[in-house]
Amino acid sequence: MHEFDLIHDYFKPLAKSFPGSLNLSDDAAILTAPAGYELVATTDAISEGVHFIGNESPGLIAQKLLRVNLSDLAAMGAKPYCYLLTVMLPRETKSDWVAAFAEGLRKDQHQFSIHLAGGDTIATRGSLSFSLTALGLVPSGKALRRSTAQAGDIIYVSGTLGDSALGLALLQSAITVAPEHQRYLEQRYFLPEPRIDVGQKLIGLAHAAMDVSDGLLQDLGHICKASSVGATVHRHKLPLSQAADALIQTNDALWDKITGGGDDYELLFTASADEAPAITALSKELSLPITVIGEITAGSGVQLSDESGQAIPAERGYSHF
Amino acid sequence: MHEFDLIHDYFKPLAKSFPGSLNLSDDAAILTAPAGYELVATTDAISEGVHFIGNESPGLIAQKLLRVNLSDLAAMGAKPYCYLLTVMLPRETKSDWVAAFAEGLRKDQHQFSIHLAGGDTIATRGSLSFSLTALGLVPSGKALRRSTAQAGDIIYVSGTLGDSALGLALLQSAITVAPEHQRYLEQRYFLPEPRIDVGQKLIGLAHAAMDVSDGLLQDLGHICKASSVGATVHRHKLPLSQAADALIQTNDALWDKITGGGDDYELLFTASADEAPAITALSKELSLPITVIGEITAGSGVQLSDESGQAIPAERGYSHF
Repeated sequence: MHEFDLIHDYFKPLAKSFPGSLNLSDDAAILTAPAGYELVATTDAISEGVHFIGNESPGLIAQKLLRVNLSDLAAMGAKPYCYLLTVMLPRETKSDWVAAFAEGLRKDQHQFSIHLAGGDTIATRGSLSFSLTALGLVPSGKALRRSTAQAGDIIYVSGTLGDSALGLALLQSAITVAPEHQRYLEQRYFLPEPRIDVGQKLIGLAHAAMDVSDGLLQDLGHICKASSVGATVHRHKLPLSQAADALIQTNDALWDKITGGGDDYELLFTASADEAPAITALSKELSLPITVIGEITAGSGVQLSDESGQAIPAERGYSHF
Repeated sequence: MHEFDLIHDYFKPLAKSFPGSLNLSDDAAILTAPAGYELVATTDAISEGVHFIGNESPGLIAQKLLRVNLSDLAAMGAKPYCYLLTVMLPRETKSDWVAAFAEGLRKDQHQFSIHLAGGDTIATRGSLSFSLTALGLVPSGKALRRSTAQAGDIIYVSGTLGDSALGLALLQSAITVAPEHQRYLEQRYFLPEPRIDVGQKLIGLAHAAMDVSDGLLQDLGHICKASSVGATVHRHKLPLSQAADALIQTNDALWDKITGGGDDYELLFTASADEAPAITALSKELSLPITVIGEITAGSGVQLSDESGQAIPAERGYSHF
């Protein structure tokens, strides 16, 4: 298909509710932050054979691509605004594939109130790849950061950990598990839930925040390094789904998926102990677990400890590269 | 190489002068438009074997990638602000290659006052590909558009046309030409000159503007369609470099490279006849030819005419796809 046809048929409809897209018919999109707001921008890319197998539903690939970017916006406390999309297609790509991909975007645009503002569609001799730049709005000067954790802060995480890594492990291996658990964990892998509402509500509450994409301990290490602090994480306090808990019961080695598995897309944040009641109230308001998992310390590095306070050696994370 | 090493060694230095990049160490970059300005955003991507051969200097590939995006900012009248970069690398890519690529970016960041703000580095099983999202600043509500040409407007173009397409033709064929002309035309292909200064100065002067990337006649057609007008272009008025003129003298068929060749990255704009003195003054101020090439008409479509006013049939453009 010709570039202009693809854009006209599948991508223009995704831009029509966003006036700044100029109907994808100009040289650039116009982005206007309301008074008192600034923009945050993040980019995440995926490539066939590395980040997805290629036989997944194209709509799910599109949704995950958008959602991992939305998770970065959430981590900054931003409200989704618009995105630019690069689509790199081998010439043999069928238009049905592109149609289904665009349909996934359409669903999530609606769910997360974000619009396509621009992008590029190119042919590639290589594999199907996508890059997405998402823009969000945040009150000026208030964006959540990684570098602002303080010794004595409580460490929290939203939702449950390890589901996605366990889902991927199930897809790639012969582990057997109850069908409802299998479905749940695979769904968590294919369709992460960016914690957009949590992120925005954490402005003024949290000291430091990020999303967990490369494994809890590695990502917490980034906060510690950026903030020049240390952290202790209590493994027995880590929030597990029923499905993850059932798997861990059968195989203790799977703890590494909880502490070091990737693709959680939960929010990891620190806050003063004084904010505990407000965070409990937030968890209730959003009907989402927000769990205390440890404390920020005056040292450096991340310690994982068991119920008795003994250090547990653990793998350090997950690389998408 | 590991993603974090690449970012640390080659990309962090490109972000250090831009505070909003947060040293590439957070979940997203923070973009702050000064009061009275808004942001414009554009994305262009390139892939080995389609947009570049792969044996070019990595620095030149980087510069061209950045410059084609800067040309889109110029077309909107925007001042360069920052960019996000996606780098998709086959695992066998050497770190020397990435170092030379980053060095090309460093040179152009300096020349065009733009900074790296964020991005993503991923492995791919396919070919080397890049996507770049450039952001620019434009006075609020003043961005140049394609859709605002008016019947009676004069049509102008900056610089000279066809050089890049002729440069590519020379690279791909056995045409012989004087060595200085060969060097000039190849240089115009490898290293386009985004007309950043022209674009910013056209705010308040031009009615409609865009950059010529897919061939003059096709791109002027986009302005006509978006503005519901027609256009007449006088072929004998099209600005040619000495090198292009020399080639055209030897082969009249090469006119199609002038009117339909891609990759010019000159600015094409329309303005009221009343602005002619101001545009002449601008050309002088910037020491850059800005040439009258035709008129916007009340009709539709683009007519190419010869010196006697007769229509000339011409190929319609160039697709990068």
